[in-house]
Amino acid sequence: MQKPSIPKGTRDFSPEEMANRNYIFNTIKSVFQLYGFRQIETPAQENLSTLMGKYGEEGDKLLFKILNSGDFAGGVADEEWAAKNSVKLTSKISEKGLRYDLTVPFARYVVQHRDQITFPFKRYQIQPVWRADRPQKGRYREFYQCDADVVGSNSLVNEAELLQMIDEVFHRLSINVTIKLNNRKILAGIAEIIGQSDKIVDITVAIDKLDKIGLDNVNAELIEKGIPQNAIDRLQPVLLLQGSNADKLTTLKTVLAASETGLKGVEELETIFDLVSLTQVATTIELDLTLARGLNYYTGAIIEVKANDVQIGSISGGGRYDNLTGVFGMDGVSGVGISFGADRIYDVLNQLNGFPAMSEENTRLLFINFGDKEQRFCLPLLKAVRAAGINAEIFPEAAKIKKQMSYADSKKIPFVAIVGENEINANAIMLKNMTSGEQQLVPVDELVDKMNAQ
Amino acid sequence: MQKPSIPKGTRDFSPEEMANRNYIFNTIKSVFQLYGFRQIETPAQENLSTLMGKYGEEGDKLLFKILNSGDFAGGVADEEWAAKNSVKLTSKISEKGLRYDLTVPFARYVVQHRDQITFPFKRYQIQPVWRADRPQKGRYREFYQCDADVVGSNSLVNEAELLQMIDEVFHRLSINVTIKLNNRKILAGIAEIIGQSDKIVDITVAIDKLDKIGLDNVNAELIEKGIPQNAIDRLQPVLLLQGSNADKLTTLKTVLAASETGLKGVEELETIFDLVSLTQVATTIELDLTLARGLNYYTGAIIEVKANDVQIGSISGGGRYDNLTGVFGMDGVSGVGISFGADRIYDVLNQLNGFPAMSEENTRLLFINFGDKEQRFCLPLLKAVRAAGINAEIFPEAAKIKKQMSYADSKKIPFVAIVGENEINANAIMLKNMTSGEQQLVPVDELVDKMNAQ
Repeated sequence: MQKPSIPKGTRDFSPEEMANRNYIFNTIKSVFQLYGFRQIETPAQENLSTLMGKYGEEGDKLLFKILNSGDFAGGVADEEWAAKNSVKLTSKISEKGLRYDLTVPFARYVVQHRDQITFPFKRYQIQPVWRADRPQKGRYREFYQCDADVVGSNSLVNEAELLQMIDEVFHRLSINVTIKLNNRKILAGIAEIIGQSDKIVDITVAIDKLDKIGLDNVNAELIEKGIPQNAIDRLQPVLLLQGSNADKLTTLKTVLAASETGLKGVEELETIFDLVSLTQVATTIELDLTLARGLNYYTGAIIEVKANDVQIGSISGGGRYDNLTGVFGMDGVSGVGISFGADRIYDVLNQLNGFPAMSEENTRLLFINFGDKEQRFCLPLLKAVRAAGINAEIFPEAAKIKKQMSYADSKKIPFVAIVGENEINANAIMLKNMTSGEQQLVPVDELVDKMNAQ
Repeated sequence: MQKPSIPKGTRDFSPEEMANRNYIFNTIKSVFQLYGFRQIETPAQENLSTLMGKYGEEGDKLLFKILNSGDFAGGVADEEWAAKNSVKLTSKISEKGLRYDLTVPFARYVVQHRDQITFPFKRYQIQPVWRADRPQKGRYREFYQCDADVVGSNSLVNEAELLQMIDEVFHRLSINVTIKLNNRKILAGIAEIIGQSDKIVDITVAIDKLDKIGLDNVNAELIEKGIPQNAIDRLQPVLLLQGSNADKLTTLKTVLAASETGLKGVEELETIFDLVSLTQVATTIELDLTLARGLNYYTGAIIEVKANDVQIGSISGGGRYDNLTGVFGMDGVSGVGISFGADRIYDVLNQLNGFPAMSEENTRLLFINFGDKEQRFCLPLLKAVRAAGINAEIFPEAAKIKKQMSYADSKKIPFVAIVGENEINANAIMLKNMTSGEQQLVPVDELVDKMNAQ
């Protein structure tokens, strides 16, 4: 007999885990909706022609590919088959793959449904994605992404709204975070003014290490990367940038005076900070030039969110991109979006003991079952309790009371109704508070009010 | 440039469709929770060893199989490779498949986590499943299943609860339905008393045609199937069964007097009808001997739900089964469950115009954007409206008013806030009801109350 298991890197979610996960997803969904974003869903399987070449060579390898149905081998020429080259054969025996992220399917969706979409299109999407990554701690082969994007609007109001949404989500989840903000145009401007536009990635990677390895080592690394000394000298004010966001922006304006792109980036950040200030965002937003996520993708604002009280990678991030849909033949669709990392947020809340003690989805009242007669008495009561919107159940058989009580314990049901002969005669139920142990005789017609008052 | 498309048999869901689908899913989820069921999720991919052989030969073919990562061909012996036999090669180059239903993964889950589960285990699961079926109208290669099961309890209270849940779900969705109820033991009893236990399927199929082809033709078909005339004669009272559920059960008790199994089935149905009557289920529940779904699977009650006002197959169904987990080496776990067909329920509501006119997820107020100054005035108001829990947004740029208004129309946003110079001077907003066209000047500090009163 086989011992059942699941593929490595995948997970089952128990009722307790699902209640906690739903707490996160529902919070994010509510905020997305509060800000006017609407949900779409796309199929788990996409044509490989949609997916291939969108995530780099490594990404192509990490796509899960679906074997064609039927006689997949029969369709391959004998010569090609005999070569036994897995890479070349893949496209012959597989036409579909599992979604790798939500961005490419969204781009495909926008192009395919362009005639039905009213722009700006504010969409959110919460679905699993699959990657044939080597499984390791905190990295899974199936995980959910929670994305919200606005496409078809260049207004920086969108950036400000996304920052507010991040503030609101983590406020509701009671997680202290810092939002880090950067702008691709500023990074490009810095590279430009030191005459090293092609070295933008090397420069940003070096800047990123400042905290860890110190200024001298960063400068040494820049030389190693082939950046001339005079350029490195001109980079020093940027590396030494300090003070408030306004201070930093003032310095940058001087440093970047000769770069139109750089100044545009500074101006964009000024506008975003100004718009955000109008809505009293409580979260600290910090201009951070070391932020370089998705550098080949983002063209304006870059956003990253760090938990203040837990050591973990970024728990949310996003930015502004141009030309989301160009690869599918529809130019000029720019957008800005954010993504919440549900698995990391889960880990953060777990470490902070931040999940609600009692999920709203939980059963609140269990009727103990003493037998047929008592069951007949309880079923209409159970119906009434449920009609009042209270999640409730009856133990389905007259098992030993100990078993029934431990069932209530394991499901963390806070109240138990004990109804025996005495209670039936008194037309009442004995209501037991499972936390305090307190018991109280409650007349039948007061049960709903009593439960609602708890 | 490629024209983007999705694999046949799969679907994108637009915001409008998602709002309607969420209405269905949320209704079902709420009822599941009201009755003490808790959610689990299992991975999309299961080991093929878990899936193969569980759905018959045809099912094995309809499983979507994932191509192994890396050099899948390299792992296959040259001789085997040269044979080019797709069926035999599948297991060599594919180890995982996509979930085909929620039942087998649930059985696998129960066995794998048996030590963490407290029985009876009331779980629900709402996830997509995938089948490489030939796509046709109403049949998709990716669709959601919504299952609730109780395992580890033989009590008929569970059957009664599931019937109440069906009643509650369709009541909430305002769909008139009839629940059809049967019992596998009665069918077995009928076959037994006419001495044709091995012909139970043929007999049930014939009974099923009674309405369509009439009694004479049914009897003719039974003869054709090799059932002797004297057995067919003894079957006549069953074929002619009429009257109330109680009448039918009374007749069956006489007819099935010689079959212990048959009488047990009658007794079970009597108990279920009795338990249901205690909770005033509004839906008509009809004893229907022609109900034979999942005959190789169900061992007790069989449940099917039909929409009264729309011509469509069953929109929900389920039953009692023994030994869910035997195939994974854990015997003695029986259970009973129901499944809601979300796609068909969607079609029914569509035909009945039964979706809510306005989704709760929808934006309720749009601020028209006249430019920087007006935007600065509106953003704090927008923040206040949202803080009151009202889904709201601002058009992100000062586009032409016509464009902004048609944006509101296309998103079915019921109220629009028009704020120009005059309104700013009056510290008020012009609130326009998009349905009636009525406009009203509302002082800024009354806006939230005004919106809440709508």
